[in-house]
Amino acid sequence: MYEGKLNWLLERLHPDLFRGVALESIVYSGRTQFQEVSIVDTPSFGRLLLLDGKTQSSELDEFVYHEALVHPALVAHPHPVSVFIGGGGEGATAREALRHRTVQNVTMIDIDQEVVELCRKYFPEFSRGVFENPRFDFRVADARRFLEEEERLYDVIILDLTDPVEEGPSVFLYTKEFYELLRNRLTREGIVVTQAGPATLLNYQEVFSPVFRTFKEVFPVVRAYTVPMLSFGFTWGFVMGSLGRDPAAMEASEVDRILEARGVQEELRFYDGIQHIGLFSLPRYLRIRLESETRVVTQAHPTFLF
Amino acid sequence: MYEGKLNWLLERLHPDLFRGVALESIVYSGRTQFQEVSIVDTPSFGRLLLLDGKTQSSELDEFVYHEALVHPALVAHPHPVSVFIGGGGEGATAREALRHRTVQNVTMIDIDQEVVELCRKYFPEFSRGVFENPRFDFRVADARRFLEEEERLYDVIILDLTDPVEEGPSVFLYTKEFYELLRNRLTREGIVVTQAGPATLLNYQEVFSPVFRTFKEVFPVVRAYTVPMLSFGFTWGFVMGSLGRDPAAMEASEVDRILEARGVQEELRFYDGIQHIGLFSLPRYLRIRLESETRVVTQAHPTFLF
Amino acid sequence: MYEGKLNWLLERLHPDLFRGVALESIVYSGRTQFQEVSIVDTPSFGRLLLLDGKTQSSELDEFVYHEALVHPALVAHPHPVSVFIGGGGEGATAREALRHRTVQNVTMIDIDQEVVELCRKYFPEFSRGVFENPRFDFRVADARRFLEEEERLYDVIILDLTDPVEEGPSVFLYTKEFYELLRNRLTREGIVVTQAGPATLLNYQEVFSPVFRTFKEVFPVVRAYTVPMLSFGFTWGFVMGSLGRDPAAMEASEVDRILEARGVQEELRFYDGIQHIGLFSLPRYLRIRLESETRVVTQAHPTFLF
Amino acid sequence: MYEGKLNWLLERLHPDLFRGVALESIVYSGRTQFQEVSIVDTPSFGRLLLLDGKTQSSELDEFVYHEALVHPALVAHPHPVSVFIGGGGEGATAREALRHRTVQNVTMIDIDQEVVELCRKYFPEFSRGVFENPRFDFRVADARRFLEEEERLYDVIILDLTDPVEEGPSVFLYTKEFYELLRNRLTREGIVVTQAGPATLLNYQEVFSPVFRTFKEVFPVVRAYTVPMLSFGFTWGFVMGSLGRDPAAMEASEVDRILEARGVQEELRFYDGIQHIGLFSLPRYLRIRLESETRVVTQAHPTFLF
Repeated sequence: MYEGKLNWLLERLHPDLFRGVALESIVYSGRTQFQEVSIVDTPSFGRLLLLDGKTQSSELDEFVYHEALVHPALVAHPHPVSVFIGGGGEGATAREALRHRTVQNVTMIDIDQEVVELCRKYFPEFSRGVFENPRFDFRVADARRFLEEEERLYDVIILDLTDPVEEGPSVFLYTKEFYELLRNRLTREGIVVTQAGPATLLNYQEVFSPVFRTFKEVFPVVRAYTVPMLSFGFTWGFVMGSLGRDPAAMEASEVDRILEARGVQEELRFYDGIQHIGLFSLPRYLRIRLESETRVVTQAHPTFLF
Repeated sequence: MYEGKLNWLLERLHPDLFRGVALESIVYSGRTQFQEVSIVDTPSFGRLLLLDGKTQSSELDEFVYHEALVHPALVAHPHPVSVFIGGGGEGATAREALRHRTVQNVTMIDIDQEVVELCRKYFPEFSRGVFENPRFDFRVADARRFLEEEERLYDVIILDLTDPVEEGPSVFLYTKEFYELLRNRLTREGIVVTQAGPATLLNYQEVFSPVFRTFKEVFPVVRAYTVPMLSFGFTWGFVMGSLGRDPAAMEASEVDRILEARGVQEELRFYDGIQHIGLFSLPRYLRIRLESETRVVTQAHPTFLF
Repeated sequence: MYEGKLNWLLERLHPDLFRGVALESIVYSGRTQFQEVSIVDTPSFGRLLLLDGKTQSSELDEFVYHEALVHPALVAHPHPVSVFIGGGGEGATAREALRHRTVQNVTMIDIDQEVVELCRKYFPEFSRGVFENPRFDFRVADARRFLEEEERLYDVIILDLTDPVEEGPSVFLYTKEFYELLRNRLTREGIVVTQAGPATLLNYQEVFSPVFRTFKEVFPVVRAYTVPMLSFGFTWGFVMGSLGRDPAAMEASEVDRILEARGVQEELRFYDGIQHIGLFSLPRYLRIRLESETRVVTQAHPTFLF
Repeated sequence: MYEGKLNWLLERLHPDLFRGVALESIVYSGRTQFQEVSIVDTPSFGRLLLLDGKTQSSELDEFVYHEALVHPALVAHPHPVSVFIGGGGEGATAREALRHRTVQNVTMIDIDQEVVELCRKYFPEFSRGVFENPRFDFRVADARRFLEEEERLYDVIILDLTDPVEEGPSVFLYTKEFYELLRNRLTREGIVVTQAGPATLLNYQEVFSPVFRTFKEVFPVVRAYTVPMLSFGFTWGFVMGSLGRDPAAMEASEVDRILEARGVQEELRFYDGIQHIGLFSLPRYLRIRLESETRVVTQAHPTFLF
């Protein structure tokens, strides 16, 4: 008789687009000092984390996002020992970075301790083993202030930040000024990678292409790559800036060799040499539009995602 | 920053109409032998019960529905002693009937024991005190078969059934044949009242007007009345058939006198003499359309609600 | 195979409630100087007018709203000759007032000429004959300023305004100060009636009860009444203030006699003597809550509808 | 005041997933002999075509789908002269195939003439110049019957069919029996490519992986590839079977050389040598799951998409 679904999570993906995901239960709903947090169980995506009404991670495909964010940069660095993570409160970014045997310390700075604790409680698999790992150092702080004050250098810096929405806490972490600070915190062949918002025809120009253009002001080698993220509703963009190696010039076999040497290969579900090539093989229109972007994001002229 | 609501209960009210109610939590979701049961908490309606995806009751306004269903019939009977309730698993219909001091026994027959138990557990206020009341007799059975087999007579018969949806269990409880059976189970001045589906311009003709017309085949006095039910999304219709008194001929003061004499008056929130008058004062178009209805519902020609 | 509906009008009725109405076509969509206007065709409600995203009228049940707004006040006045309408751009309020033979002039003041013109074009039945009627005088103006400047008196004043939403144009037309101005524009047995927002358990206290309380500061006789409005998604409230007669003291037969004497009776679909009684027969809880309301709405302390 | 959107296209993407796309206007809505057709204008995707409530094409990204469907197969064939298209009523698949100078005839068989005509009228850019092209031959017929009866051979066969939904017309065009028929209609180095449904973690196993497995029963070289399709709500899968060349063994530079030699290169927006490599670089989990699929789709055991 009745075959419908009653309970739904509705998420506004864009001013002209929303999505309904069938709900199984509402696990947690509350406000931290910084943001609204929602944790829900769904039959399609498993458990979902939303901050300020936007999906951040799902059990179904968090591995895609976190592997895509972390491994290309780590693989492109010849010998990554120290890693900095800005944001990343779920712990999954650190989890991926710590897989590389070469890595001796991962410093993670997230501003919202409550989110970190909620994730440890409700998504234990995301950070499995991370917080007990002696190579891992987590501090609650503002990532920019921390980097300004501590003059330590890193081999790889990974920005796993919330999107730069208006009045949101991350807006100034998507600017030329911040990227210049990051460059000054890199070792000689250092690499910075950031998530850079959606990368579809509808919205690549909101964050992805301006961040790409802005990186080009700061880093000698800049590469953009994308991955379809079902739970985000969009293909997602990443931008990498390197003082050393060009990740797009690596061959699949070399990537696989490096992963194997660092003991990572068997544990990955999404990323390997073939997928490394796939990540950097963008559609023609997107390559053209990224190259023709002219906007440099600065504190005076920030960019916002819907 | 984020002011939206994420979690929603979506209910199809009509092929061309649906409704979203913000969700606080999903309290229960399962299937009994007969139907899908959903119990959810909402900020607007409080706790809600849905059967097969349709709202049956809400904490906010169940009192409106149950008072409107029960009291006009009981008040129109000069001395109601025995009451029969078909359906009514939530216990609230019995709760209202038992308020009348004259009533010595209320027999309730519901087919779905699981729903009765779920309601006792999750909506204790609906049936507060009812199941412990020595004047109350509940049995799990098919209401029609029970009435066919037990030849006992009742002063008032109240049908608190689910709507007659296609392939649903209640279809044949909205037919002339069933109403004839009911008439044979009434005492001399007996009264039958049934919920009769939505009564709006959009859908009064699905159940309300055919049931009204069908009652006229069976009972000498037939009256229709309506009440707006926010949680149902529609104004709701009721039809009463009487072997004795005409409820629409009563004055407000008389209704209040009866309620007072039976010790009911102070406990009611919705119904009293003034509201009795209001219930039976239908809009002109509805009176005309009810009177011009020609369809008699029979087992051979049942009627269905979307 | 496919039995769903694809195109929907989604309307937020309340922070915790929205509604989907199947769409047939989008007839018009634009902005006037004052508001967003949307006109759509739907299978369930016929053509719909929305201002700022809120349903104002539908072909299906506009007659219910407009008859309920106009006739009780006109009937309660012994001999209404001059009528003032504030708002009412659709023309249907004037259409109803002009039905009464006694009425010699109807002055309508609406601030948004474009809405008036859009309604004449897209809802010709709403104002059928009105704009050509020599007894009808329409001016584009701010209703309050017009009444402040023109010292003419009226037998009946009808406020058919948009709801007092924050920053909306109507907020100060729901205040004690404005009602005092209206009282000063009434003839000796004059009557004012206003639409007063939704009247359900969920939201009666947003506008309905404070307006009722505020009227009591200004008029010797004050009555509230309600009518379920399917296309609005809520039962709707109205408040009447009278310098003369009490509409709630009239009998159905007298109402019918007046309607007949003024040549109105045969043309009405919703309202007549019986329905007059029904309108003023409020549920017990609503009468109690209206009487216990303490908030007087003033310019310094306005009230807002979601 | 009001910043929302009122009119939305709601599409069920999956039992547990739906999507709302803001609507500008409903251009066309009707039924052909075979299916429901909806054509709507949207601010995000431009004009959209839906069949049986499922998005088939949008102005925004049809070029992605059609370039991805057509060019890899044509490029992998050393000298494609004759092309067969099953389905493809929008004309865009033929448009892409006809770009290759080597192609002397494109035969397109679609069962639904009305859809073809609606697309020519409402999406003129989709088939710009195609129907006037002397190298193009369109016939209204059942693709399977046509191929059974006409024994002509083709260099490339492209299946641009609707998804195999239950009781839909395309179910038997996704079976081993049909693919065997296709193999018998290929020239010596012939290639077949089919759209193969969504390819996400949520639903790759509904059509994509079984079709891949089934192709392996029939063709010596079989390759799967995917492309994110925003307007479809999913990353989309394609399966190619070749009697000659392996498309995944080609280098980017060779692809570009072929495109240039055939006069195609400058006209493409999505596809080129780099993107060719990207298309065939699947995520690790997907390669593993495709290889471990065991279901062969036959007429006796068809597969269905939700």
